[in-house]
Amino acid sequence: MTAPLDHRQSLSELGRRITDPPIAWLMKLALDRPELISLAAGFTDSMSLPVAHTRDLLERLLTSDAAKARSALQYGTGAGDDRLRQLTAERLRQQDGAESATGHDTSRLVMTHGSQQLLYLVSEALCEEGDIVLVEDPTYFVYLGIAQSRAIQCRGVRIDEQGVVVSHLEEVLEGLRKAGELPRLKALYLVTYFQNPTGTTTAIARKREALELLRRYEDEAGHPLYLLEDAAYRELRFAGGDEPSALGLPEAPERVIYTGTYSKPFATGIRVGYGILPRELFNVVMRLKGNHDFGTANLLQQILVGALESPIYEEHLAQLRQRYAHKAQVMGEALNAHCAETFEWRTPAGGLYYWAGTRDRRGTGIDSDFFKAALGHNVLYVPGALCYAEDAARPQPDHEMRLSFGSASEANITEGIRRLAG
Amino acid sequence: MTAPLDHRQSLSELGRRITDPPIAWLMKLALDRPELISLAAGFTDSMSLPVAHTRDLLERLLTSDAAKARSALQYGTGAGDDRLRQLTAERLRQQDGAESATGHDTSRLVMTHGSQQLLYLVSEALCEEGDIVLVEDPTYFVYLGIAQSRAIQCRGVRIDEQGVVVSHLEEVLEGLRKAGELPRLKALYLVTYFQNPTGTTTAIARKREALELLRRYEDEAGHPLYLLEDAAYRELRFAGGDEPSALGLPEAPERVIYTGTYSKPFATGIRVGYGILPRELFNVVMRLKGNHDFGTANLLQQILVGALESPIYEEHLAQLRQRYAHKAQVMGEALNAHCAETFEWRTPAGGLYYWAGTRDRRGTGIDSDFFKAALGHNVLYVPGALCYAEDAARPQPDHEMRLSFGSASEANITEGIRRLAG
Repeated sequence: MTAPLDHRQSLSELGRRITDPPIAWLMKLALDRPELISLAAGFTDSMSLPVAHTRDLLERLLTSDAAKARSALQYGTGAGDDRLRQLTAERLRQQDGAESATGHDTSRLVMTHGSQQLLYLVSEALCEEGDIVLVEDPTYFVYLGIAQSRAIQCRGVRIDEQGVVVSHLEEVLEGLRKAGELPRLKALYLVTYFQNPTGTTTAIARKREALELLRRYEDEAGHPLYLLEDAAYRELRFAGGDEPSALGLPEAPERVIYTGTYSKPFATGIRVGYGILPRELFNVVMRLKGNHDFGTANLLQQILVGALESPIYEEHLAQLRQRYAHKAQVMGEALNAHCAETFEWRTPAGGLYYWAGTRDRRGTGIDSDFFKAALGHNVLYVPGALCYAEDAARPQPDHEMRLSFGSASEANITEGIRRLAG
Repeated sequence: MTAPLDHRQSLSELGRRITDPPIAWLMKLALDRPELISLAAGFTDSMSLPVAHTRDLLERLLTSDAAKARSALQYGTGAGDDRLRQLTAERLRQQDGAESATGHDTSRLVMTHGSQQLLYLVSEALCEEGDIVLVEDPTYFVYLGIAQSRAIQCRGVRIDEQGVVVSHLEEVLEGLRKAGELPRLKALYLVTYFQNPTGTTTAIARKREALELLRRYEDEAGHPLYLLEDAAYRELRFAGGDEPSALGLPEAPERVIYTGTYSKPFATGIRVGYGILPRELFNVVMRLKGNHDFGTANLLQQILVGALESPIYEEHLAQLRQRYAHKAQVMGEALNAHCAETFEWRTPAGGLYYWAGTRDRRGTGIDSDFFKAALGHNVLYVPGALCYAEDAARPQPDHEMRLSFGSASEANITEGIRRLAG
């Protein structure tokens, strides 16, 4: 008798390497204990989801013009619906105050199944095992998960309230140069609006300087170095003005990969994101997308065409911003009332998260007493340590937490923060 | 001055290797020449798309219960909607006449963004560069494209009117054994219902024998060998009875990967497919899916829940089958009328395609006089050669063509075949 065969032996290296994301465990916890108040989930606010708007849009789409209705239920093209691509590029141009269309070129824009898919496709297109991507310190933990599964090395670059710290970026690039690792470097990944997890928005000056700096290291890298700008939260701004994206910079057509989404500002059940990429990368991503799924579901795209062509999208967004402004205020007040002496935090101007740290630097990780006590009080958060790439140059901070006001009700936000303080 | 940097140098090996699919060129041709009659596209019939049904389902979904409506517009879970998974597993059990639920286990079922995505995820989970997958000769050309991009070797196994020829499968496996290549073999990929491109349906006896045969080579391979059953066209049956899937076989929970879709039988603009996999592979595919997109768009899944829970799905399917039966008949009559002396073909009992060959074995490839003449007469088909894996053991057949009656109108089907004969 031979030993029973192990499925693990059939797997690819990717299949063997990939692990359950830490957040899966947190989400399972929340599902198993309905009494738990979750300030961990990245879900959006349910109460403000555009039910009536979506019903109206679909009614109109599926009633008025028979040919148009049928075409919404048919396959679309790989890059996505042309009208939606055009509306998206125009919207971005307006947001960026761009005078020409060079950086916001519709023909380099692809619609995706959420902006997450664009991040995955770009990772596939650019990165071999062992390649390096620079990330914010801390960064979006699902991106770290993609990198881990594909054996991409992430190196952290410090951020401050203006975004990426350019002097530290230079330090990291110099380090790579000295170690002969520049040929492995592919991109700098920045979550530039109300960053997940810290809520930071990157100033346009920082984007410009970062791009210029990357450019100086390209000859030694032997290939272009890209700025991957993840603007997933851009539309969820409830205070202050918008900041231009890197798409308006002169290098953009050749060096900027930009991704955004309609899922968070409209409805997460309607998963439509998009990316704009330099021409050659666009071509590669299109081929990959063809193998993944031929193109994003057409019906979802047509809902968004309808929303963007009517006042619906802007109306909904205005409501949504008010709603998040209010929920952020509720969480801020609860933090002030209960946690002023134990936590420090930044007040976000958009997005879904507060980023808080313990003043006494007490650990908040999954194995910490703090986390266990919070769980004992039926409240859940995302431990900050999950958002940091490994980095030998600093001890991994583990005294922070991401607190989401996205999906919890106002009452639960207040109660959750009260329990956390206790 | 150094030479300008080449984007190609930034790409991963996958990014460099992946090519435009040949079909992209055909589709572009069809778009650029609206007067062209395309018998090439794999699009489904537009006239029978369920516009009114979808409108009713959405109206009901977004009107009746506010909480349910909101949840349809919110993120779902990674594996997909529980109710849809359950309905899907039950439907498969019924189709297979299964008495127990062992092989059709809901907990191993994942909803995907079309069944295409499942094929991609499984390729990622199982195959390293250089690994081997056995495919039908000929097979689904997009699967060959996935394999090409990921440097997976495809080896063809002959088929007859009952599906895979088991004696030839054994010959191929013996060849791999002698060459010491069994450790690289991962799976046998079969399109088991109204196969794309040949229209063949695989008899259940063949699936059983193929699984038993694979089992005998596992010890030498050092790992499980899977049957990847692609049932994308299963529901599009318009003649004869259904054939059980491999999910009912005793080996299924450990060895069968099954994928199906609601896109083709309901609406291709509503992209929802699914897969059932052995437990450990399911876990890996779930992790990959989390990195790709967190889960399939919830709104689309809720439309299908509504369709399956009401008589709508079955009613639509019955209509659709009638429609395709008619269109297949129209194409058959045109072939009989115009091509009886020049072509031979098989009459399909389901799916979207006739598979025809020239009697004099004249070439039909993209560079052939025949293809150019067809194009000159404004008619397009998929050259059969695109559907064959490279195989040193036989000259690549190039006298065949896939003729689709899916999207063309009856008039265009008749006229297209008439022109092809000319």
